[in-house]
Amino acid sequence: MAATVVSNLSKIPFTVNPDLQVERDESPLTPHISEITNIIDGSDRVTKRRREIEKILFKEPIFKECANIRTYRPRQEVYAKGVERSVRLFSLKQEHNWSDAEFKLALKAINDEYSLALHNVMFVPALERLTTEQQKAKWLPLARNYQVVGTYAQTELGHGTYLQGLETTATYDATTEEFVLNTPKVTSIKWWPGSLGKSVNFAIIQATLIIDGKKYGMHPFLTQLRSLEDHKPLPGIGVGDIGPKLSMNHVDNGYLILNNVRIPRENMLMKNAQVSREGQFTSRGPSKGNYSAMILVRVEIVLWCFISLSNASTIAVRYSAIRRQSKLDSSQEESKILDYQTQQYKVFPCLATSYALFFISKTLRNRYTRIHAEMMKGNYKNLPEIHSQSAGMKALASEMTVEVMEVSRQACGGHGYLAASTLGDIVIGAKSLITVEGENTVLYLQVARYLMKRFAAAAGEEPLSGSTDYLNKDPNEYRCPLKSPRDCRNVGLLCEVYRFRAYVMIANAAKKLQRDIEAGKKQHVAMNDNLVQLVRAAKAHMMYCMIKDYNESMSQLQTSLPVANALHYLQVFFSVFNLIKNGGDFLETEAVGLSQMEWLKEVEVQMLAEIRPDAVSLVDAFDIHDDALGSVLGCYDGNVYERMLKSTENEPLNQSDVHYSYHQHLKPFLHKNNPSKL
Amino acid sequence: MAATVVSNLSKIPFTVNPDLQVERDESPLTPHISEITNIIDGSDRVTKRRREIEKILFKEPIFKECANIRTYRPRQEVYAKGVERSVRLFSLKQEHNWSDAEFKLALKAINDEYSLALHNVMFVPALERLTTEQQKAKWLPLARNYQVVGTYAQTELGHGTYLQGLETTATYDATTEEFVLNTPKVTSIKWWPGSLGKSVNFAIIQATLIIDGKKYGMHPFLTQLRSLEDHKPLPGIGVGDIGPKLSMNHVDNGYLILNNVRIPRENMLMKNAQVSREGQFTSRGPSKGNYSAMILVRVEIVLWCFISLSNASTIAVRYSAIRRQSKLDSSQEESKILDYQTQQYKVFPCLATSYALFFISKTLRNRYTRIHAEMMKGNYKNLPEIHSQSAGMKALASEMTVEVMEVSRQACGGHGYLAASTLGDIVIGAKSLITVEGENTVLYLQVARYLMKRFAAAAGEEPLSGSTDYLNKDPNEYRCPLKSPRDCRNVGLLCEVYRFRAYVMIANAAKKLQRDIEAGKKQHVAMNDNLVQLVRAAKAHMMYCMIKDYNESMSQLQTSLPVANALHYLQVFFSVFNLIKNGGDFLETEAVGLSQMEWLKEVEVQMLAEIRPDAVSLVDAFDIHDDALGSVLGCYDGNVYERMLKSTENEPLNQSDVHYSYHQHLKPFLHKNNPSKL
Repeated sequence: MAATVVSNLSKIPFTVNPDLQVERDESPLTPHISEITNIIDGSDRVTKRRREIEKILFKEPIFKECANIRTYRPRQEVYAKGVERSVRLFSLKQEHNWSDAEFKLALKAINDEYSLALHNVMFVPALERLTTEQQKAKWLPLARNYQVVGTYAQTELGHGTYLQGLETTATYDATTEEFVLNTPKVTSIKWWPGSLGKSVNFAIIQATLIIDGKKYGMHPFLTQLRSLEDHKPLPGIGVGDIGPKLSMNHVDNGYLILNNVRIPRENMLMKNAQVSREGQFTSRGPSKGNYSAMILVRVEIVLWCFISLSNASTIAVRYSAIRRQSKLDSSQEESKILDYQTQQYKVFPCLATSYALFFISKTLRNRYTRIHAEMMKGNYKNLPEIHSQSAGMKALASEMTVEVMEVSRQACGGHGYLAASTLGDIVIGAKSLITVEGENTVLYLQVARYLMKRFAAAAGEEPLSGSTDYLNKDPNEYRCPLKSPRDCRNVGLLCEVYRFRAYVMIANAAKKLQRDIEAGKKQHVAMNDNLVQLVRAAKAHMMYCMIKDYNESMSQLQTSLPVANALHYLQVFFSVFNLIKNGGDFLETEAVGLSQMEWLKEVEVQMLAEIRPDAVSLVDAFDIHDDALGSVLGCYDGNVYERMLKSTENEPLNQSDVHYSYHQHLKPFLHKNNPSKL
Repeated sequence: MAATVVSNLSKIPFTVNPDLQVERDESPLTPHISEITNIIDGSDRVTKRRREIEKILFKEPIFKECANIRTYRPRQEVYAKGVERSVRLFSLKQEHNWSDAEFKLALKAINDEYSLALHNVMFVPALERLTTEQQKAKWLPLARNYQVVGTYAQTELGHGTYLQGLETTATYDATTEEFVLNTPKVTSIKWWPGSLGKSVNFAIIQATLIIDGKKYGMHPFLTQLRSLEDHKPLPGIGVGDIGPKLSMNHVDNGYLILNNVRIPRENMLMKNAQVSREGQFTSRGPSKGNYSAMILVRVEIVLWCFISLSNASTIAVRYSAIRRQSKLDSSQEESKILDYQTQQYKVFPCLATSYALFFISKTLRNRYTRIHAEMMKGNYKNLPEIHSQSAGMKALASEMTVEVMEVSRQACGGHGYLAASTLGDIVIGAKSLITVEGENTVLYLQVARYLMKRFAAAAGEEPLSGSTDYLNKDPNEYRCPLKSPRDCRNVGLLCEVYRFRAYVMIANAAKKLQRDIEAGKKQHVAMNDNLVQLVRAAKAHMMYCMIKDYNESMSQLQTSLPVANALHYLQVFFSVFNLIKNGGDFLETEAVGLSQMEWLKEVEVQMLAEIRPDAVSLVDAFDIHDDALGSVLGCYDGNVYERMLKSTENEPLNQSDVHYSYHQHLKPFLHKNNPSKL
């Protein structure tokens, strides 16, 4: 009975929800969205290729059902399906002879939801980077052809950020020409590396090299963890999964205990330092190659933020266009929630930040590519600049992303709290970006230290270049360039305002630090007493950099007028929204005055109204496949309620009308003194 | 092998981690913490009783293992254990003859983590409130003795907040003297009620009454859903679980489809309106009893926020005291992260907000009790006031709570992302408070509408009283009372600043609305065009109310000097932190000037330093049982790393050294072209 009652109502219509259709029919942007899609993909050719790859993937249940597995199945299966997906992906790559770029398109389509991700993302690149030619010749083919699968193990239970604190040791035994690896204490246990727990059979382990009792710093050691025959952990190795995380439970983040594990001398990855048979240590000095890899990951994270944001805003905008609640005008039918100014104010920041971070990440990526090329030629002049830029962008982008996405999730009301909405998982997944690959506060402080150095250098002879060039001159001639409400829509002028605010905050922090030291505080005490202010200054700098990079990226764009208009409104909104959000700073630094703040607030709500008609088209332009999105609220056809009801069929509790716990627990209790008739 | 390697390192020491012990030894507050514990519990007698009840509960595995079940077991078991816990709780209540207050202590100890919560929280109180004397006599004993178990079903798939939009119908059939219940469309399906999916056999269903084709508004209908014999759904009823949520998956939030379900006429709960046998409708006018229940839940939510915050800050503060990372002073050992100013700035807002919301909720609760008593005597004069206060406090408290807790979670780095830390679940659990029992934006707008009315009334003859009394007079004589940095520690003066900022923002919103209407905008258009500004004004008002209530609550407190000092620093920090956080508003309204902002920022970091020595004692004072906390990071003894490693034994993936997915998927792939020896 129950099943029949449900199935009658959970039939999903073949037509698009009229409330969504009318949005597409009436947006002037609709005929032009493929322009935007192509910009995001890189070209129409890539868009086409991506769709072909998605077609290949989503005809297979294993890829189509990602969201269902994640939402309804226990961890064991979530992981097992992640392994199955990995193997299938690797096979498809081989079958179709996908290039690295094409493989990336496939990974994007499935939101990187596979267990062995670390093999491609960390293990192979680390082998490429850290090995001698001889080692390359041996190991790269094995890794690239998936004859061995590996990960990269650095973080320990007791240490993440502070690399010098890592405690794993690799002691050279010249008698056998082996290294003996140990995690001597509970805090030294490797902890967190992805794919480590159950999946991989090899790991590159970062450990302190010890020869004859003397320490020689951290080095990478390629270590076999599991038998290639039967996958059993090798002697002396304790390895397992660290338990569920808030998200990404298809990955077996692992722990690793090493108890006198012996590996051949040749397994030290010796590109940057060598140990001879006799135990002679030689080094080419500190490797800068590792920096480059670290920087690249942070540059990538800004792009991942965009991907998360585009998923989240697709769901929130489409749902807001079909959900009706209360009446704006009591003589009319219930209003779409997207028509409420407050709803726009909750959903459009997410939409605008999506676009912003896409364009910002593009500029950042180009800068990285340029500086990386310099470094490959031995020119490390711009390393501190790109290091600081990537650290700060990663931190600010991830912080912003989580904030605006969470507001968007809340804007979907209770339904945004359902796992089947996928919104929660997107937000929670993105939260990991705040602490991975450099914890954000630590990164902001790296930026702040860089800024303090540059500020001091600005007093010197040589003018600064790069992101801090504005520190060259004291802008004491500053007059707020926003002379009218109209000026508040000018992104160039807004950028000047951001720049001045950053300047003042950096200068104030530097002066305060100086004063504290002159007043007799020790350097490290003065530093610690000003950390909060330093972080604020770093954020102000990075926010300016974002606005500048966004403008730079947009100024190079050639588009049709409707596209240009829509993107312009988003850009203005992003600039104004973040200015108002940090209004205190801008007023305090006198970057703007009270009239400007009033104008800016007017422009902010004007932009909401300008964005409104194109909102659905702007998320359609992300062109996210329904199977990739996996959300009952965000589907392209807008048949939300039917999908929600239908989704209950996947819930294990609904497998039977009466749950087993009734018989075990509830029935004995209720029947104890219960007349079966009332 | 692997198991031995792990177990050697995962032995949990019997002693307290010295880094935590030294905090307790050196805090001047330590000898006085029981004073605070008693304040929080209400008295030393309640503290004692609470501990006795915790002892009873936590000697039983079913209560001790809440966190383990939640973290490591699949949904089926999570729910089943929730049912088992419900039954055991109800039995203990009967066995020990617990009073309602004692039962509440038990629920608090297990963080309400049981499946049948809605029976006690909603079903029984609704029966008490909505029934005639005759109905009371029949149903209350059955419900109180758990002969029937029920929930309250109002929200539908398509409607939450907007009650007039609800679509479920109850049509009277005079020929059989029955009501015929229907959820005619997919959007009308009842969706979300807790315990509805699999647990309860009865529900109070809100439906539109129809007699002879005429609608008579929403009324409550007591409806049997499942057989008392075998728990099977009755004919015409489709009922099930709505699927996993981001948290609280021990509760079976359910859907309910009604297809011509017939219930006897007597099952309409007729306290406020009756239908006679002949189909004659009579009503005593709109019930205000329902308001009272809704208000009480919102008042309670402010207290729940405190409970969540106290759990979260216990974990974050203790972990920050044992985690060491990097060196403040390079000549010393690695520093406790709690010693970094930035860490304090991330963890202490959560700690301070815990205490703030405890004291604020106390004042709010007293106000509710007073006004409720008036209402019981038929005096509804203060209903709008308490309605608005509870709505606004619920919204602002939940918003703040989620924000500061999330920052605290991030302050625990990667480990705060582990499910076993429990921090994530606390934060995500609290997120539900933002959308339940009135979505926050909707609530802020209710407050705003109340403020607009009061602002208009202030121009009238009768002076305003209650929270809006300050709207009586235009404070054009305002001079910022903060004349020195010292003044910025004066919570009375700070409160004046908050009040002025609220006044200006309310006045500006009212004037803008007025201008728009005078300029010819329709009322509803003008309203919608100003929603963002109205929400800002409502928040400013509620923030002022919080500061005022906090001050009021603290001024009545009698404590020892160390307690008074510690609580005072928290109070100043809370006031200053939230002022700076909204600095833009305060500068814009000229509630403070630039010098004040500078002083306030100095005081803010001074307070961090003042709170630092007592931080651990201040969380110890919450006296949260380790089994209630269920966190590997937050345990009383601070043996964090050992517990983390130990916790991996609970992870199902670690049941075998080699996961089954290896044999199914990975092995065939790797062995395809893999030499078993390299």
